[in-house]
Amino acid sequence: MRIDILSLFPTMFQPLKESILGKAIEKELLDIEITDFREYTTQKQHHVDDTPYGGGAGMLLQAQPIFDAVAATQKKATSKGRIILLDPAGRKFDQEVATQLAKEDHLTFICGHYEGYDERIRSLVTDELSLGDYVLTGGELAAMVMIDATVRLLPDVLGNSESAQTDSFATGLLEHPQYTRPADFQGMKVPEVLMSGNHEKIAEWRHKESLRRTFERRPDLLIDYSLTAQEKKWLSEFEKNKK
Amino acid sequence: MRIDILSLFPTMFQPLKESILGKAIEKELLDIEITDFREYTTQKQHHVDDTPYGGGAGMLLQAQPIFDAVAATQKKATSKGRIILLDPAGRKFDQEVATQLAKEDHLTFICGHYEGYDERIRSLVTDELSLGDYVLTGGELAAMVMIDATVRLLPDVLGNSESAQTDSFATGLLEHPQYTRPADFQGMKVPEVLMSGNHEKIAEWRHKESLRRTFERRPDLLIDYSLTAQEKKWLSEFEKNKK
Repeated sequence: MRIDILSLFPTMFQPLKESILGKAIEKELLDIEITDFREYTTQKQHHVDDTPYGGGAGMLLQAQPIFDAVAATQKKATSKGRIILLDPAGRKFDQEVATQLAKEDHLTFICGHYEGYDERIRSLVTDELSLGDYVLTGGELAAMVMIDATVRLLPDVLGNSESAQTDSFATGLLEHPQYTRPADFQGMKVPEVLMSGNHEKIAEWRHKESLRRTFERRPDLLIDYSLTAQEKKWLSEFEKNKK
Repeated sequence: MRIDILSLFPTMFQPLKESILGKAIEKELLDIEITDFREYTTQKQHHVDDTPYGGGAGMLLQAQPIFDAVAATQKKATSKGRIILLDPAGRKFDQEVATQLAKEDHLTFICGHYEGYDERIRSLVTDELSLGDYVLTGGELAAMVMIDATVRLLPDVLGNSESAQTDSFATGLLEHPQYTRPADFQGMKVPEVLMSGNHEKIAEWRHKESLRRTFERRPDLLIDYSLTAQEKKWLSEFEKNKK
């Protein structure tokens, strides 16, 4: 996969080289190129922003440097892929979007800063994505989060291919509680079933606790979830205990 | 504000020094300390993770290094504040959570990695927060996003104090379209009203377009929004045009 990042703060992307993403780059599964779009401005003072028409606070990114930087990076790629604008008014990024992006062979992320974008930049992009309902000082961290969530889904990136499949959201439920050594930590004990060696019982306990956690914390996730007969029984048990 | 970050990858936090957050640190509005909790493990091989009880893929963070690292950082702070675990099963981070966190004088972020946490770590924290419905390779990027969204709300951090108030979400609506020079870019023109100099008309246009964008893209935000009479009129106009 080729990833182009357009940003005024190219050095912010150093974290991408660490951890699993760095390994994906080493394995040549991923090629990330960061472009400082200030290099593409046609203005003499190298400005890329200007005041908003109609007045108001802050500065807006101008269309020209972004249009020209995207044109230049597209020439180096073998396919257009997705051109993504990071913006709080965009479609909310989630695991489904990450799964879609992981199927592409070229992604371009346009990271804004300052107060906002000139509206005409939106005509250039295939997707407008938001990381969540909050405002950031710039799109750089948002782009890194989306790249991290996407790249870890590529085949051969995670060491253990099983891991991505048991994540929260991958099954539609939150992950069950997990425990590691010691069996007793400051009086807090590991549930006995997990030390029983009975794999069937362990799988059942995990499934039930996964459902319980989802019921307690994120009942909204159950709206689109198809319940089995067993799950329905457990749910009515949780409901009863709640009262 | 004091921020403690517990992480196995301390060098990932270099982006925090850039942009607005770096300025907040320079102005001494913010003091960020990053602790590698591997230094707190009592194990000879410096391990901080172990296999899950009951079997399964991946490794879990153990309770002991986290408990001891939190105890050590708490000793250096003047108040407990909020101790935040980054986890996809946590409460969803949004602008409201950012506003709450911005009122604290001490925040501690525990960044996991690997497959997950020993369940007993949850007993140590005041908050479990999720960045959104997606899975990341670690909590580091999530912590940086939350810190960015929070710190920019602190008084005197943004250069122009007006900026944070007109953001998407701050008013309950998405931000209206914005334009900067040139007036005509590749045939795409700036709406005439914005160049009229009529401030009342400009304010009205922006308010209406802000509502229109929210109606088109995020009707869910309107559920909890108290509409004025004028806004109700506009909404019925949008509804009509939609048909």
